[in-house]
Amino acid sequence: MSVERLAIVGLGLIGSSIARGARTYGLANTIVAIDRDPGVIERVRALGLANLATTDAAEGVRGADLVILCVPVGAIGTVAEAIAPHLKPGAVVSDVGSVKAAVVAAVSPHLAETNVFVPAHPVAGTEYSGPDSGFSTLFSNRWCILTPPEAADEAAVERVRALWQGLGAIVETMSPEHHDLVLAITSHVPHLIAYNIVGTAADLEEVTQSEVIKFSAGGFRDFTRIAASDPTMWRDIFLTNREAVLEMLGRFNEDLSALSRAIRWGDGEALHELFTRTRAIRRGIVAMGQETAEADFGRARNAAPSAPVQG
Amino acid sequence: MSVERLAIVGLGLIGSSIARGARTYGLANTIVAIDRDPGVIERVRALGLANLATTDAAEGVRGADLVILCVPVGAIGTVAEAIAPHLKPGAVVSDVGSVKAAVVAAVSPHLAETNVFVPAHPVAGTEYSGPDSGFSTLFSNRWCILTPPEAADEAAVERVRALWQGLGAIVETMSPEHHDLVLAITSHVPHLIAYNIVGTAADLEEVTQSEVIKFSAGGFRDFTRIAASDPTMWRDIFLTNREAVLEMLGRFNEDLSALSRAIRWGDGEALHELFTRTRAIRRGIVAMGQETAEADFGRARNAAPSAPVQG
Repeated sequence: MSVERLAIVGLGLIGSSIARGARTYGLANTIVAIDRDPGVIERVRALGLANLATTDAAEGVRGADLVILCVPVGAIGTVAEAIAPHLKPGAVVSDVGSVKAAVVAAVSPHLAETNVFVPAHPVAGTEYSGPDSGFSTLFSNRWCILTPPEAADEAAVERVRALWQGLGAIVETMSPEHHDLVLAITSHVPHLIAYNIVGTAADLEEVTQSEVIKFSAGGFRDFTRIAASDPTMWRDIFLTNREAVLEMLGRFNEDLSALSRAIRWGDGEALHELFTRTRAIRRGIVAMGQETAEADFGRARNAAPSAPVQG
Repeated sequence: MSVERLAIVGLGLIGSSIARGARTYGLANTIVAIDRDPGVIERVRALGLANLATTDAAEGVRGADLVILCVPVGAIGTVAEAIAPHLKPGAVVSDVGSVKAAVVAAVSPHLAETNVFVPAHPVAGTEYSGPDSGFSTLFSNRWCILTPPEAADEAAVERVRALWQGLGAIVETMSPEHHDLVLAITSHVPHLIAYNIVGTAADLEEVTQSEVIKFSAGGFRDFTRIAASDPTMWRDIFLTNREAVLEMLGRFNEDLSALSRAIRWGDGEALHELFTRTRAIRRGIVAMGQETAEADFGRARNAAPSAPVQG
């Protein structure tokens, strides 16, 4: 079942990918693109991503059946407040934020009884940002987590679920709190330590930045990709999922202390045991099609271009 | 200038890639493959990687002009001791170990005056191991670090340099101590924290392993690739580069504490500042051709296969 009028607020990587996918897979009859940045709206028009593109949120959401907020979680409350009075009765509101409990708390109070909020989080992305970086297959075979309120109107939830399934995503539902805990370990803490080690390397005196860059193929390189993600989006994630992130970071630190001790004491068995155990999770990820098994992410090997597989 | 007789001890990812490259680029007239594992020798013969393949190190190194030790650094001293009596006078010995000071200390004492040891470390690899995982272009446009002794015979150093340049690598020389410090931050600590977080995630009770695997696309996934590297090789690296690794790990921990504090205190500016700074290093790595700029490592996007660029 497709949406009559779909409004997307924020045309960055995710918002523009939803617009492209909705068009490609025929999920909405009318696509409205809303962004406060005139430069973005200009690109949206140039790329032909929507039927209507505007910087005016009130005008943009008018008459929409489904409104998806694709703005940094730190700004989502303000946006919700701004559009709420202009939503048509029965319009469903959703989002794509990487944090859910804080988003629910920021958005729900502003919405009228008839405007159900069905939070969503597509677990997909690249390190690039902006309307030009999106692509219609970004969500293909990726998970999208919905965290609807207990008493949510099933039709409203179904409208959001249908959009994501139409975009090729696998939809799961859980509580906002559990979502935030799961993402803290699978996404937030990994980003935090990636940002951290890149920062550490940049500040060394014994090793020059040029050396860090030259010899990055030894592993560091992979962290820099993650550490190139959008700064504002990530600042907001850490500020709004503070408790879960600090909790998981605590576990990480405990384990790291034990690992350092094993190195200091020369406990080769403990090291080998951990290094062997971690391979199993990798196999699981490849088996689930969440990663290509290609060596080294299929970076240039032989002359032949590599055709990545995504299960 | 090509080597008359090249002996490679240990036909794993690196050793077999050297064999393949030496053959492909005509860098040696005779290639001898030596491995203590009969199963590996069988694969080497099946794959036609060498003119002679044997499990007998003494026989294998006899008459060789250049012998490259491609075994885990923990085993390299034993191997050097075993082959030393059978080396022809003037034969040059090299290695590919990820740690240099410990390797020099383990190998040099066993060698005769005329057998110069020119340590080398090609900064390249994938998460796969064994003779089947190698490929001739693995070292193309990657750095190879030589750490020759101060008084080393220039002709010996040149023989090793020529091989690596022939394999497509960019050769640099530095002291073993500096190498170990540079690699601690660009390779060893990144691997350590990747192994660590994958271990942390595996041990959680609030989050199931199936959830960790499903939602790994949020960043965790990239760490699992690194954490799938060869356990024995990495155990040896941490045991033999202990001081530099613990030193760099100390810096990492200091920075991580400051970052946790910024999160706890809600210091968004500090977070945004770091997250912006880290982007510059990424740009440098892409600019130096050590990484493809393709989004998300060019994982499947549109149907079209991606042709990774490596500068």
